Amino acid sequence: MRLALGVEYDGAQYFGWQRQKEVNSVQEELEKALSKIANHPVSVFCAGRTDAGVHGTGQVVHFETEAVRTDRGWTMGVNANLPDSIAVTWVKQVPEDFHARFSATARRYRYIITNSQLRPAILNAGLSHYYSPLDVDKMHLAAQSLLGENDFSSFRAAQCQSNSPNRCIHFINVKRFNQFVVIDIKANAFVHHMVRNIAGSLIAVGKGDKPVEWIAEVLELKDRTQAAETAKPNGLYLIQVDYPEEFDLPKHNPGPLFIPE
Amino acid sequence: MRLALGVEYDGAQYFGWQRQKEVNSVQEELEKALSKIANHPVSVFCAGRTDAGVHGTGQVVHFETEAVRTDRGWTMGVNANLPDSIAVTWVKQVPEDFHARFSATARRYRYIITNSQLRPAILNAGLSHYYSPLDVDKMHLAAQSLLGENDFSSFRAAQCQSNSPNRCIHFINVKRFNQFVVIDIKANAFVHHMVRNIAGSLIAVGKGDKPVEWIAEVLELKDRTQAAETAKPNGLYLIQVDYPEEFDLPKHNPGPLFIPE
Repeated sequence: MRLALGVEYDGAQYFGWQRQKEVNSVQEELEKALSKIANHPVSVFCAGRTDAGVHGTGQVVHFETEAVRTDRGWTMGVNANLPDSIAVTWVKQVPEDFHARFSATARRYRYIITNSQLRPAILNAGLSHYYSPLDVDKMHLAAQSLLGENDFSSFRAAQCQSNSPNRCIHFINVKRFNQFVVIDIKANAFVHHMVRNIAGSLIAVGKGDKPVEWIAEVLELKDRTQAAETAKPNGLYLIQVDYPEEFDLPKHNPGPLFIPE
Repeated sequence: MRLALGVEYDGAQYFGWQRQKEVNSVQEELEKALSKIANHPVSVFCAGRTDAGVHGTGQVVHFETEAVRTDRGWTMGVNANLPDSIAVTWVKQVPEDFHARFSATARRYRYIITNSQLRPAILNAGLSHYYSPLDVDKMHLAAQSLLGENDFSSFRAAQCQSNSPNRCIHFINVKRFNQFVVIDIKANAFVHHMVRNIAGSLIAVGKGDKPVEWIAEVLELKDRTQAAETAKPNGLYLIQVDYPEEFDLPKHNPGPLFIPE
């Protein structure tokens, strides 16, 4: 039997999603809790392996089990065995051809910047912080040049293991909520550090260090050394993963927290 | 010279605002950081002494100093000496007749409930959590019976040290943002545990355990044993303190985080 789970986590205390020897990871904590409820060792596959310090509200995993438990067992039961900073948000049985990573048709991330002279205290490990006033309209305008199918070599980390630098961005919106600037981006998939590299370059535009047209130029150059520095992981959330309608997976509010849909 | 400061803090790791022997408090951390920048011992007076686990986005303090520092010294300099979970949001010199507590004309709190079957992982220590679906319209309607000047004995903790149980509520609004229910309440002042006791009783109405009219009845009885249990501290934020216009204090977004004004 194959089960899919929705997972939310505050990544601040973890060395990323992926299980690693000697450091703690979200995957390891989740597998430990699932193994306890299943009463056998459980390995999970996720939609997107987030980096150290990155958070998730809409992560999706799947795993195999022969254990028969109620939905409450797989949700509340697992949550009772997880640290406070990780929670299962839904469970659903899926067919054997469902794969959390390979069945996904799109991923959506939000990158959140506290844009104020002074640093935040509430959710301090869940926000990035830039002092200089950011022009959100310019950032949004510049971001539109990234839409559609493109070669994202300029926004791709050197250690990226993907065969192709091509990805297709469905939308990218930059909005302000109070003192917070939110970059909301959806693509079929992302090359390594793509959101944080795009965020870093949009911040350079927002500060006025670079003109709006610069983003299109950097994209065109297909050269990582041309883009701005990678933005910090703190502000990054994997908020949604799309799957074909046929799987009919439960919806979870993308968030994080009070940000409207 | 008397200075006023705006202070934001995540109260999860503190035994409340007030300095106490042997346990850590927001006040102690703030006084330590201020004393370092002032280069002499500093004692602060605050607008509202929040309980253990309660947070602030709009706390105000004042203190005396002869040290001459720039505004950046009193904000960024102090922040550099504070834990990540506490931050100064503004500073302003005030006349000698300003008192953070006694000059305040009103306080405003927000109480935030995650209303979902499963517990949250993001900001888990900054939210309270109720499983049962809450009817926000009924909660809002019931809350309106508390408006104006009333004897709040029914919502007052036994250990309250105030001479009078009378307070005047300026507004009390209950709204939903995604899966979050927010109680937003402003009064001239609050008796001890007043917001959490009102929240607990409004939750009983929202769950359908009590009818809308019950809140007015409980208020009328002036008897603490008639109200519901005190809601947990996690979800409570002191978001704003009002002072007479003449002091012209800086404004800070009430929040917390992405909640609109």
